[in-house]
Amino acid sequence: MALQTRLTRAFGIRHPIVLAPMDPASGGELAAAVSAAGGLGLIGGGYGDREILEAEFAKAGNERVGYGFITWSMAKNPVLLDLALAHKPAAMMLSFADPRPFAEKIHAAGVPLICQVHNLEHARIALAAGAAVLVAQGTDAGGHGLTTRGTISFVPNVVDLVARERPEVLVLAAGGIADGRGIAAALMLGADGVLLGTRFWATQEALIHPAAKARVVAATGDETVRTSVYDIVRNRIWPRGYNGRLMRNAFIETWLGRENELRARVDAERKAVEAADDSGDYDVSNVTVGEAIGLIQDLPPAGELVQRLVTQAEARLASVTRSVITN
Amino acid sequence: MALQTRLTRAFGIRHPIVLAPMDPASGGELAAAVSAAGGLGLIGGGYGDREILEAEFAKAGNERVGYGFITWSMAKNPVLLDLALAHKPAAMMLSFADPRPFAEKIHAAGVPLICQVHNLEHARIALAAGAAVLVAQGTDAGGHGLTTRGTISFVPNVVDLVARERPEVLVLAAGGIADGRGIAAALMLGADGVLLGTRFWATQEALIHPAAKARVVAATGDETVRTSVYDIVRNRIWPRGYNGRLMRNAFIETWLGRENELRARVDAERKAVEAADDSGDYDVSNVTVGEAIGLIQDLPPAGELVQRLVTQAEARLASVTRSVITN
Repeated sequence: MALQTRLTRAFGIRHPIVLAPMDPASGGELAAAVSAAGGLGLIGGGYGDREILEAEFAKAGNERVGYGFITWSMAKNPVLLDLALAHKPAAMMLSFADPRPFAEKIHAAGVPLICQVHNLEHARIALAAGAAVLVAQGTDAGGHGLTTRGTISFVPNVVDLVARERPEVLVLAAGGIADGRGIAAALMLGADGVLLGTRFWATQEALIHPAAKARVVAATGDETVRTSVYDIVRNRIWPRGYNGRLMRNAFIETWLGRENELRARVDAERKAVEAADDSGDYDVSNVTVGEAIGLIQDLPPAGELVQRLVTQAEARLASVTRSVITN
Repeated sequence: MALQTRLTRAFGIRHPIVLAPMDPASGGELAAAVSAAGGLGLIGGGYGDREILEAEFAKAGNERVGYGFITWSMAKNPVLLDLALAHKPAAMMLSFADPRPFAEKIHAAGVPLICQVHNLEHARIALAAGAAVLVAQGTDAGGHGLTTRGTISFVPNVVDLVARERPEVLVLAAGGIADGRGIAAALMLGADGVLLGTRFWATQEALIHPAAKARVVAATGDETVRTSVYDIVRNRIWPRGYNGRLMRNAFIETWLGRENELRARVDAERKAVEAADDSGDYDVSNVTVGEAIGLIQDLPPAGELVQRLVTQAEARLASVTRSVITN
């Protein structure tokens, strides 16, 4: 079985399921597993690090995978983009800043550009950059983003914009999707496929501490919140308006709404957070996931998960359509 | 054509489309038009007013319609509930507070109880109240709600909870849905139907000033925000955590983030807002709609809209399902 869309035809893949390039979860092993199962795996380049880039591409072996950067951070050291393009990735995804300064180089390398967008202005800029794919990410998603738009109305808005201005461009839905129901819903909204973060974060291959994964499996979907407290404590200077969706924990409960106090004692708190990163103490270290955690009850291998998602989505599409349409 | 689900069978309606009981948009005329077209219209009782209640039920004539209250406000004058039940409504919807103190009376009247829920705790309380229908409303929606959950993951979370605990209970999706794509997506997520607010707000029958409707037709989906500034200026004491999604305007741009200053000069500002209500000045008065405004380009009669939504949803279900499933 396969789910065929414009995305699967354009990328020569079997299923319209793309791994979000999460840092640090989406390493080469996870990306390769998603691609091997018929989706498209993207390695998470995150803020940008040369050694990690080379190591994770190596772990992907001969599997066809793409790469993703936090654009404003990669821009401080743009040789990272050259290094990634040298691996002839299946796609290059740019998120969280204007992609136009880097688009020409990506086009010249013959690599499809995927741009993550969080509002309609982002979408217009991505079209101007010549993106082949727009990821319409709602605030429901884990990690960094805006609070402006929810997935269920933002996706059709982006689909309509693209249809008017550059109908050959593909649209992926992202944010709050973690099972076959969400994939089927995304296709109904007009998306050509989905970009899944949190669901793949909770797999065997994800480069995440087992204690963090265990928290997510036990959580409900109500247990996340958008906040900047970890950006403050880790001294990550994000563009205005961005914050991150994370699982609530003791650190967030302590500092949410007290950000100025946190800034005043950031050195001591940073040491505590870095120690917690090492020890796997997720009362203090961050668990960066979205509202989709409420739909996650296990930690399967990623390839098995891709098959499950496709089976669920197909069954849902067929059974709902059959049962509701009457004449 | 008709879209058949557990909801249509339970309520004896043709389409799984319910009008949100918006105050003041959802008067008797709008509710009757939705019911006449095969959906289920709910009159918006809002904060509760005896004269308006009687007048709007009268306008609905012999059409079968339901009623909805802001529960914490109705609770100050619970005779309003008796008055509404005396009209033998097709359903009674309670939102924004614990429905249990009122459930027994509604059950005794033989009226199905619909409870709007914004998180999983609300959903559990609604089940304990014996609700026949849960409306899972995401933060994407217009008007009052919580920021906790987006529609696309909250709906399947509520569906799963209901399936485990009281599988006979129905679930409606609400928030960010305004066309056939959204309705088809909601059905894929597991909902038995949809509750539409903003889309019906933008119809001929809605009790909204034409100048406000014109703003919504012209807006994109990025132009809403959650805020409490109008609750402050109108002296509506909402339960903790609730705020309202509204279209951005000059008043919101002025006071968002300056709520304490607004409180300090609330009397003067209230006079200005009330004058703007009367004159139709929506730089100052509120336009209470959700992210779905980006999907709205016209102001059709409500009955024509119901037909359009059903036609769109059916076409979407059939065409997407046919095109994506390959074997």
